[in-house]
Amino acid sequence: MVGIIMGSLSDRKVMQEAADILTELGVAYEMDIVSAHRTPEKMVEYAKTARDRGLKVIVAGAGGAAHLPGMVASLTTLPVIGVPVKSSNSIDGWDSVLSILQMPSGVPVATVALNGARNAGILAAQIIGAFDGAVGNRLAAYKEELKAKVEEMSRDLHQSSGAQH
Amino acid sequence: MVGIIMGSLSDRKVMQEAADILTELGVAYEMDIVSAHRTPEKMVEYAKTARDRGLKVIVAGAGGAAHLPGMVASLTTLPVIGVPVKSSNSIDGWDSVLSILQMPSGVPVATVALNGARNAGILAAQIIGAFDGAVGNRLAAYKEELKAKVEEMSRDLHQSSGAQH
Amino acid sequence: MVGIIMGSLSDRKVMQEAADILTELGVAYEMDIVSAHRTPEKMVEYAKTARDRGLKVIVAGAGGAAHLPGMVASLTTLPVIGVPVKSSNSIDGWDSVLSILQMPSGVPVATVALNGARNAGILAAQIIGAFDGAVGNRLAAYKEELKAKVEEMSRDLHQSSGAQH
Amino acid sequence: MVGIIMGSLSDRKVMQEAADILTELGVAYEMDIVSAHRTPEKMVEYAKTARDRGLKVIVAGAGGAAHLPGMVASLTTLPVIGVPVKSSNSIDGWDSVLSILQMPSGVPVATVALNGARNAGILAAQIIGAFDGAVGNRLAAYKEELKAKVEEMSRDLHQSSGAQH
Amino acid sequence: MVGIIMGSLSDRKVMQEAADILTELGVAYEMDIVSAHRTPEKMVEYAKTARDRGLKVIVAGAGGAAHLPGMVASLTTLPVIGVPVKSSNSIDGWDSVLSILQMPSGVPVATVALNGARNAGILAAQIIGAFDGAVGNRLAAYKEELKAKVEEMSRDLHQSSGAQH
Amino acid sequence: MVGIIMGSLSDRKVMQEAADILTELGVAYEMDIVSAHRTPEKMVEYAKTARDRGLKVIVAGAGGAAHLPGMVASLTTLPVIGVPVKSSNSIDGWDSVLSILQMPSGVPVATVALNGARNAGILAAQIIGAFDGAVGNRLAAYKEELKAKVEEMSRDLHQSSGAQH
Amino acid sequence: MVGIIMGSLSDRKVMQEAADILTELGVAYEMDIVSAHRTPEKMVEYAKTARDRGLKVIVAGAGGAAHLPGMVASLTTLPVIGVPVKSSNSIDGWDSVLSILQMPSGVPVATVALNGARNAGILAAQIIGAFDGAVGNRLAAYKEELKAKVEEMSRDLHQSSGAQH
Amino acid sequence: MVGIIMGSLSDRKVMQEAADILTELGVAYEMDIVSAHRTPEKMVEYAKTARDRGLKVIVAGAGGAAHLPGMVASLTTLPVIGVPVKSSNSIDGWDSVLSILQMPSGVPVATVALNGARNAGILAAQIIGAFDGAVGNRLAAYKEELKAKVEEMSRDLHQSSGAQH
Repeated sequence: MVGIIMGSLSDRKVMQEAADILTELGVAYEMDIVSAHRTPEKMVEYAKTARDRGLKVIVAGAGGAAHLPGMVASLTTLPVIGVPVKSSNSIDGWDSVLSILQMPSGVPVATVALNGARNAGILAAQIIGAFDGAVGNRLAAYKEELKAKVEEMSRDLHQSSGAQH
Repeated sequence: MVGIIMGSLSDRKVMQEAADILTELGVAYEMDIVSAHRTPEKMVEYAKTARDRGLKVIVAGAGGAAHLPGMVASLTTLPVIGVPVKSSNSIDGWDSVLSILQMPSGVPVATVALNGARNAGILAAQIIGAFDGAVGNRLAAYKEELKAKVEEMSRDLHQSSGAQH
Repeated sequence: MVGIIMGSLSDRKVMQEAADILTELGVAYEMDIVSAHRTPEKMVEYAKTARDRGLKVIVAGAGGAAHLPGMVASLTTLPVIGVPVKSSNSIDGWDSVLSILQMPSGVPVATVALNGARNAGILAAQIIGAFDGAVGNRLAAYKEELKAKVEEMSRDLHQSSGAQH
Repeated sequence: MVGIIMGSLSDRKVMQEAADILTELGVAYEMDIVSAHRTPEKMVEYAKTARDRGLKVIVAGAGGAAHLPGMVASLTTLPVIGVPVKSSNSIDGWDSVLSILQMPSGVPVATVALNGARNAGILAAQIIGAFDGAVGNRLAAYKEELKAKVEEMSRDLHQSSGAQH
Repeated sequence: MVGIIMGSLSDRKVMQEAADILTELGVAYEMDIVSAHRTPEKMVEYAKTARDRGLKVIVAGAGGAAHLPGMVASLTTLPVIGVPVKSSNSIDGWDSVLSILQMPSGVPVATVALNGARNAGILAAQIIGAFDGAVGNRLAAYKEELKAKVEEMSRDLHQSSGAQH
Repeated sequence: MVGIIMGSLSDRKVMQEAADILTELGVAYEMDIVSAHRTPEKMVEYAKTARDRGLKVIVAGAGGAAHLPGMVASLTTLPVIGVPVKSSNSIDGWDSVLSILQMPSGVPVATVALNGARNAGILAAQIIGAFDGAVGNRLAAYKEELKAKVEEMSRDLHQSSGAQH
Repeated sequence: MVGIIMGSLSDRKVMQEAADILTELGVAYEMDIVSAHRTPEKMVEYAKTARDRGLKVIVAGAGGAAHLPGMVASLTTLPVIGVPVKSSNSIDGWDSVLSILQMPSGVPVATVALNGARNAGILAAQIIGAFDGAVGNRLAAYKEELKAKVEEMSRDLHQSSGAQH
Repeated sequence: MVGIIMGSLSDRKVMQEAADILTELGVAYEMDIVSAHRTPEKMVEYAKTARDRGLKVIVAGAGGAAHLPGMVASLTTLPVIGVPVKSSNSIDGWDSVLSILQMPSGVPVATVALNGARNAGILAAQIIGAFDGAVGNRLAAYKEELKAKVEEMSRDLHQSSGAQH
């Protein structure tokens, strides 16, 4: 089971992609709103009970001075994946990227690209798939799909324009 | 009473300047090591009891993905001053600056310059001095000293080089 | 009483949020246009008389090479909160952030996030609320509201989508 | 088993920290030099056989235009942890951070802080520890040690200076 | 013959400009979709056979953590021109610029401006034109056209507004 | 007489503001299209004859890798004012700012803000006005206008909202 | 007469280069310490009397949140040249560059490169030399010297290494 | 024949690496000091005669506001490789990188990494080697050497530490 959390419903548009790809890859998840700055006690509770509730990975998305992923990581021994979200008054996303990525020694956060919730979902599945062959196989199939799509684009390019001159 | 906290003794070289200027301005303070990522429960306890212990302002210094000032601010209604500390693997200090400054709506941190612990101390004194005339007067005297030092430098410049040609 | 100033009416859209939250928190304020670069004498006068006019905190917003907060801070012993405003020809807001934040030793400005006028208002209320129990209580209530909104969002999320799979 | 790879022996000073913490946490690893740009075929071979060789996680460190972590991730379904290394002609580390972090949709890399090899090792252990109770317990003990060190620093601070005035 | 490749059809809008200017300059090209991260084997094949298929230069465009140009350069001795493409979740284009430009010693990529596919095409023609007088002459004529357009703009400016006052 | 030049008609929208303020301040100017990269000989001719044609100041605007201001400065002893123009594929304007500002020792360019053509015109007038009392007086009057506009905005603010609560 | 000012004696090492080149070019100057933040009244006095004291240009150097050049420019109609100084806690110099360069419409500062005091001196001489033939001639001679030094380096290169192979 | 030019002898330490690798790869070169800003006429002459003097590629290194590569490219139809040099007052190298890379449409510069003169030399050889089989073969051999060095480092790693635990 993967836990997906975010600080506000305004992050959901981005974070839903993590849920969608997990569904596609057949990995169970739960999703909730947990704010480091507005519900710090709920966050502490969420993180400290995560392992016992059966979570294997936590995906946490946040924007601006994004403290949720790092604070959750400080309160659990589970791997935490951080998704920097480009929020409205962000300074081009640098704030969320750096406040998730640059964690001090001892407390890592597995950071993915800006707004990269889909990749966070895939990474969560890869973590589970390293130990669960069925998920591993679905990931291998997903990789084949990605490849097939590129090959299809390649054919489209050649047909539409005659890509050689 | 001002509370000065930092995540590690390695921040002390920078943060001591906050303590020194408070001493100089006759403002009482306490100082402690509190880490958002390594002692999250102590941090919660520290922040939630701060007002009742008589603190009026909290000065929090941290480097890298600096979550201490913002997390403390989420747990108290006291004003929190954040000092971005340029730590060893920092990306030029941008990480600590942005993860302290760019707090979401509802939870401000009063951010000062990179390594600006002295200014954090002065700002804490200004907050107290807005309500305490004696501290206000010492701040006014301090401003006069700053001015006098510039005037002295100006005289030095004129004597040493004959600054006109 | 909080003084809110800005360099131009074009900053008002952002700065009004400081006024609105102060009203909500029951803290009196005055608001004016004062430009460091176009009305430097008015700025000097404003800053030097601020304490005697009964102001406790000054909130100053400015964009680009934003000198208003720092110059006002050089002319008063009151705490000055700076709001970097992202103006039209700004280089992504970095110019206003850095020219407010990076004040030299001796003259702090309490800097908040880019366009963070609402947080500037809250910070001003926190400064006053550190000494005024009624304001402190309203801030505590405001924190509860923030928390309640997150809990409401959490319920919405669970109802709308069934957040577990 | 964790696979640790890096593009050059010059990265070893940084990457050895990943190996050291894995030893400390009782997690087996292998370490090798694999260069995306100088031994691309070895890299392909390494990545494609990783799962069958029993690896559960790969930690890849690289500097500058750092392609090793992302390319390995494109060739395996295992989770890949990327360590941006600040190399000599790096533009302040931004190049390695961004070329590891900003992976396209479909191929995530779990990025840690600049030169954060120790955290990469801990993250690898957390991934294994999510499924292996013994490793999970050692991680919990490690967290207690981190906490104990802060408490010790706190005592040192109080003794050495009398941290209250 | 110039080989133009890109990681996705979504890069085509930018990359078509390389093809168009090559047509205009009378230089043959072929165009294909080759993804470093989704079709790594096709990329290896493409790069290793490029010289024998008669290519003289490869133009490779990619966005985000852009590994295609550098990886192709690692697999061929032909000159590779990299076009940083500003993709949708790019951090202002810095990610693609730095992950193409900052190649390690031994494996250069000839990087052009962000979205500079037209310049990549011209550069490819210049490389061929250094050895092929006919292409060299067409480049010289193209330079004259650029100049003529500026002269025409200069005349327009003088007529439309009377550019002197 | 002020010379205003730009590399392309597409810069005119920005650069016209320099001409407009010069007209307003009663300072004569000429305007032309001169491109460092497309008409290098015209640029050399323009710069080398500028002083003899009676120009006192040159205002040069350019975007991207903006070489026009610096190259003109290398070819004349007149003061050259550089206007960084934010062009379409610019990396947020940083490219034009840095390639104009960071001139090597011996060849200065007086750089103004991004898209700051109006300020370039005022600066040109200030240079002339340092020696021409009539222009100096018009600049003093212009400063009074700026001040009057702020005072008017201040009155508007007080009337529209009752700026005190 | 050129006025050279700086906020602190610590800037003198950089700013002396402006004085030295002015001496070399036979242009009179005066030099003083004037701090925007510590001696704001002296700054106002300095700027408002500058024209009447016979200054033609003001060169102002400052670091960090560098307000001196812009504030002086707001108080005089003389051209003001700003020198961003890279001070000790500067964020790589970006703070001083942006807080000098990005002045709002109406109040330009002629900004030179980071630590570019020598170029500020040359620019001041160019402004004077636009109206004073003798200074203009010395600038032309200075340009010839720069050229001669390059030619000498070119000869050295050819002799020392035989620069052709 | 490759032409290597740089603006000052101070760039030679970096630029010599281009010459050294060309010697190693058996490609003839000439080297000279040519400054865009101090010897603009020599630069024009150098660029316009380059093709007729038998050059096939020009490698140009420059720091700060680096105009040499782009200006030379504007004056020849030969491919020009630009080497951003990190000079003493550079803003972390960004200035030279951006003023070389971000050339406008029509005038490309093949930019390599910061201080990447060795890669510039290799790229020049690749351009020649695309048409000259002997150089192409030496480049292929050079690639094998790079690979062999990595394999040697890999053996060293395994011997020195026993890279598996």
